[in-house]
Amino acid sequence: MEVSIVKYTLPSLAAGLAFSLMMNGPAAAGDPDAGRIKAKQTCRICHGMDGIATLPMAANLAGQQELYLIEQLTDYKTGKRQHAQMSIIANMLSTEDIKNVAAWYSQIVVTVKIPE
Amino acid sequence: MEVSIVKYTLPSLAAGLAFSLMMNGPAAAGDPDAGRIKAKQTCRICHGMDGIATLPMAANLAGQQELYLIEQLTDYKTGKRQHAQMSIIANMLSTEDIKNVAAWYSQIVVTVKIPE
Repeated sequence: MEVSIVKYTLPSLAAGLAFSLMMNGPAAAGDPDAGRIKAKQTCRICHGMDGIATLPMAANLAGQQELYLIEQLTDYKTGKRQHAQMSIIANMLSTEDIKNVAAWYSQIVVTVKIPE
Repeated sequence: MEVSIVKYTLPSLAAGLAFSLMMNGPAAAGDPDAGRIKAKQTCRICHGMDGIATLPMAANLAGQQELYLIEQLTDYKTGKRQHAQMSIIANMLSTEDIKNVAAWYSQIVVTVKIPE
């Protein structure tokens, strides 16, 4: 298969937003510029500034769903999800920081290509 | 910023493999073709065949780190990580299935572009 797909088309964004509003109330309004600064300080060593992990056991975050990122970071912060490093790091992030880094990584444009 | 980065360059693959062997023993040897079939049956509704999630609360899996995917699916299966849907789904996957779907999604080539 040689399908190349740009992640966010306008209709999918609209549908995602509608679904998000329906399921979660107003969409998260993180500030990607503030998120970029926080990511540089806190996330980049393992996850890269571009969201491509520098370690095989760390997740790629590039273009990841914003609400998914907020949920996971919140789960690490509250202890629902556990990880040696991430539980400590998420605990240092404020609710605002979490929204902001989620905004930073989710806005990275990702193009995918399924191998033949 | 207008940096366009192809995810896996050969040196980064080699470095990742070396690190992976060092940290985790032999790399996971899942079968991406078997993983594709399993993904079609089990994962595609929420995560897409191309690993781009169809729901804002589901993770994108396209090009995700293979060892990370194996760890997360195993954690869902064993109960270390909990999620209403994923705990049930991972429980239906064999260890082999987990390696195979991880091989399928991780091999998808991802290109990222940091917005200006």
